[in-house]
Amino acid sequence: MAHSIAEIAKALNAEAFGATDIIVDGASEPASAGPRDLALAMSPAYGEKLAEGQARAAVVWPGADWEALGLEAAIIAPRARLAMARLTQMLDTPWDIEDGIHATAITDGAQIGEGVAIGPYSIVGKGAKIGAGSRIAAHVVIAPGAVIGEGSVILDGAKIMRRVSIGARAVIHPNAVIGSDGFSWVSADVSNVERARATMGEAEANIPDDPSWHRIHSLGGVEIGDDCEIGVGSTIDAGTIRATKIGNGCKIDNGCHLGHNVTMGDHCLMAGHAAVAGSTVIGDRVVLGGQTGVGDNLKIGDDVVTSAGTIVLANVPSGRVMMGYPATTMTQQVDMYKALRRLPRFLRDKVGSSKSGFNSKPE
Amino acid sequence: MAHSIAEIAKALNAEAFGATDIIVDGASEPASAGPRDLALAMSPAYGEKLAEGQARAAVVWPGADWEALGLEAAIIAPRARLAMARLTQMLDTPWDIEDGIHATAITDGAQIGEGVAIGPYSIVGKGAKIGAGSRIAAHVVIAPGAVIGEGSVILDGAKIMRRVSIGARAVIHPNAVIGSDGFSWVSADVSNVERARATMGEAEANIPDDPSWHRIHSLGGVEIGDDCEIGVGSTIDAGTIRATKIGNGCKIDNGCHLGHNVTMGDHCLMAGHAAVAGSTVIGDRVVLGGQTGVGDNLKIGDDVVTSAGTIVLANVPSGRVMMGYPATTMTQQVDMYKALRRLPRFLRDKVGSSKSGFNSKPE
Amino acid sequence: MAHSIAEIAKALNAEAFGATDIIVDGASEPASAGPRDLALAMSPAYGEKLAEGQARAAVVWPGADWEALGLEAAIIAPRARLAMARLTQMLDTPWDIEDGIHATAITDGAQIGEGVAIGPYSIVGKGAKIGAGSRIAAHVVIAPGAVIGEGSVILDGAKIMRRVSIGARAVIHPNAVIGSDGFSWVSADVSNVERARATMGEAEANIPDDPSWHRIHSLGGVEIGDDCEIGVGSTIDAGTIRATKIGNGCKIDNGCHLGHNVTMGDHCLMAGHAAVAGSTVIGDRVVLGGQTGVGDNLKIGDDVVTSAGTIVLANVPSGRVMMGYPATTMTQQVDMYKALRRLPRFLRDKVGSSKSGFNSKPE
Repeated sequence: MAHSIAEIAKALNAEAFGATDIIVDGASEPASAGPRDLALAMSPAYGEKLAEGQARAAVVWPGADWEALGLEAAIIAPRARLAMARLTQMLDTPWDIEDGIHATAITDGAQIGEGVAIGPYSIVGKGAKIGAGSRIAAHVVIAPGAVIGEGSVILDGAKIMRRVSIGARAVIHPNAVIGSDGFSWVSADVSNVERARATMGEAEANIPDDPSWHRIHSLGGVEIGDDCEIGVGSTIDAGTIRATKIGNGCKIDNGCHLGHNVTMGDHCLMAGHAAVAGSTVIGDRVVLGGQTGVGDNLKIGDDVVTSAGTIVLANVPSGRVMMGYPATTMTQQVDMYKALRRLPRFLRDKVGSSKSGFNSKPE
Repeated sequence: MAHSIAEIAKALNAEAFGATDIIVDGASEPASAGPRDLALAMSPAYGEKLAEGQARAAVVWPGADWEALGLEAAIIAPRARLAMARLTQMLDTPWDIEDGIHATAITDGAQIGEGVAIGPYSIVGKGAKIGAGSRIAAHVVIAPGAVIGEGSVILDGAKIMRRVSIGARAVIHPNAVIGSDGFSWVSADVSNVERARATMGEAEANIPDDPSWHRIHSLGGVEIGDDCEIGVGSTIDAGTIRATKIGNGCKIDNGCHLGHNVTMGDHCLMAGHAAVAGSTVIGDRVVLGGQTGVGDNLKIGDDVVTSAGTIVLANVPSGRVMMGYPATTMTQQVDMYKALRRLPRFLRDKVGSSKSGFNSKPE
Repeated sequence: MAHSIAEIAKALNAEAFGATDIIVDGASEPASAGPRDLALAMSPAYGEKLAEGQARAAVVWPGADWEALGLEAAIIAPRARLAMARLTQMLDTPWDIEDGIHATAITDGAQIGEGVAIGPYSIVGKGAKIGAGSRIAAHVVIAPGAVIGEGSVILDGAKIMRRVSIGARAVIHPNAVIGSDGFSWVSADVSNVERARATMGEAEANIPDDPSWHRIHSLGGVEIGDDCEIGVGSTIDAGTIRATKIGNGCKIDNGCHLGHNVTMGDHCLMAGHAAVAGSTVIGDRVVLGGQTGVGDNLKIGDDVVTSAGTIVLANVPSGRVMMGYPATTMTQQVDMYKALRRLPRFLRDKVGSSKSGFNSKPE
């Protein structure tokens, strides 16, 4: 991965200064950089640390006096994180998946495209199609009939269940499971959940004659567009009679969940542990913060952003920034929160001390 | 999976009308239905879409004028979702698990019942018992001595650890882990967690002489009743000196967690990412919404329902519908929430603008 | 596992009374104890149940009249849970991992220490080092170049990715994934997330010309100290240009997540489903309650404790006990919560009934 400063600057669409023929083969924080590392000093705070390390060259912020920082060469990047994307891509090495189909892989009856790699103990079912150039690591299961697009990477232990179609250039991280059964149950009579929803919790609970739950099977599978990533251990359940759908360019972090029949648009992000319940429709370019929960059967517009931990229990129009439980706009949440912080003193001044306890035991 | 409309109606306990000898082999939403699909148009909104598709027959709502909707045959289902359960069961195909024990499966010393299927690379330990007719997919691990009841399905990558007993007709979804170690740690001296709990956060933190955590081992295993499902990647930890217990007919979604020593009654539902901490007792027919958290050592009565995202930190009597953090009844939560929404304007009117910031930095 | 009462008392650093030569081979709750079980009756409530079982010996609370409880022998333990740790360790059996390297394990080019056990279908990559005495169960993947310290246990289906180093005496539970890619994405232009953060949600959403997300690769790997446990299905993402770091003696429960570049000190605990976002620094002896979320780029001091479900969105000084969303000190949260419970009646008395609805639809 050795590159000259000039080469890197060109790849980053950035300007290079000084001894641009210096060769580096890694990136490092300024303080720990060795002489063959490109230091990343994209703000003055990091610039100060250059003296603690041995970097000869660094990526610095616009306007930095790189010579005064003791550097022999510098790259100036106007948008630091974008430069990071290109730079880390250049310096990375490919996934550890050996070429060819490992002797222990089971692929009878599958359609394996040109140049596909399949690792040890992986299984590709009858009639499954693996697009050209895709790389499948170890212990992967791809069910009969599933389709993987060209140039995709399926990492160790991922399971692609039946009735699933994934587009080109996907990255499916370890232990992700796509096309699992939807969680959809119905009782013979109207259940307490249905009653609670219909009455906002006012209905008396009922002890049913027949408490058993009947499974609604998932016949609809999952369709995922191109250029998507699904994080470690994330799950995308199959739809009931039509596919659960994810558009193009969506990136889903570890431990996320999309319920049955969910439709997600293009270029969405879901951070760690976020979850969307069944049949909800998510627009384009939506960003769900970590641990966000979105209820079932809702409509979330385009370009919505949620803060970490937001619990969305109602439809959200396009373009809103949401926060809280239940979610409101961030602006309204901040307003309510500021008021709540003032409330204890206000009530003490107005009414005197409280007798209500903390435990949320219903009265 | 081809069935006549008459056959389907009979299976659904529903009435059929018109050309009930029409054969269908799939179900579809009205707009996308082909001529061999049974359209599902269980409300007028869906009925309107029938004209966009090619369905000759549909399941319609009670009172629908099916002939006016352009159908040749119709099934009228009084409880739509219950009909969905039966219908999707009829139209589904069995799991992709081949008959017999795959050559790569390791089953030495296990007791394998009649008609059991075991997929590639699965391992069944010494002394483990697999009930007749059970089907085990690929990459499954069943530890020595574990017991699986008759007619169960264990899907790819699931791990059934030692000291676990699962009843009949279970479905264990991919990568679920049952019987993992409880998370139970103790320090030599009273820890800051114990002090925080005892004083509701009033105690000063203490830097312990010996900060190391000693593991309380999990000797008690897990016992699961009949007709349970455990979702993808869900975990059920072993009890300490007695089993963690789940009753009959419980259905647990993806990414859920039951801690050590939990006791759960019959016919409970847990939606995605819900979690119950150690030693809590959950009654019968309890429904925990998605991302619900229930604290440790609590008692949750029968027929309790929680909203998505509820954090339960105290005991809950039977029949309550709970919401919020900390959880209260939904009624009380709505009352508090409505008041909180009015609070900012009220305080501005009464006291003037606030100076308190949003960031939750302790003062 | 047979031990005399005298032996057990010695191991627990506790005093024994009566017929201390009685042999037991298990532990049990008092009511279900057989004659060869040591009953655990560490409080009077449990003491009462001894009569329902057949225990001849029990661990009892300080001051208990063990003879009056019908026992022939007793152990008195001053700190009950610490005694449980030692006792359950004595009574436990080793993990079910057979000695030696299974014929189906793939270990070409790996450095395997003395006495290492490796189970069926596990894979250890080229140049990976496994410390002496470590035990690796089935279906484990250890990537090329990864390092596992001495005396560690890696359980079924765990994946140790490239650029990962784990210290001595680790326990990695089933399906945990360490060293997965960080979730780090950047758009060509300033995104709506960046704008929402910079303006606390006040900025108008913008439809970008180029909505695609560029991946920042994870070159930095993961370094984990000695004596750590990582729970079932938990994920620890690799750092960007330096390692994600976990100190010594940390215990992480099931379904947890540590983002890229996180630094965690020594002797921390994370309970089930807790998550820490990228680049956050966690001090020593921090305890995160179940489902706690900690935002990115924060500093959490030493000895911080969070309640279950806490969402931390700002820095936290050492020693705080935190709760709520957004997190405050528990003391402040209780104060606000008590006031909120009084608010609906207060407003009704002062202003009259509300017209604002419950649904959090932005206005």
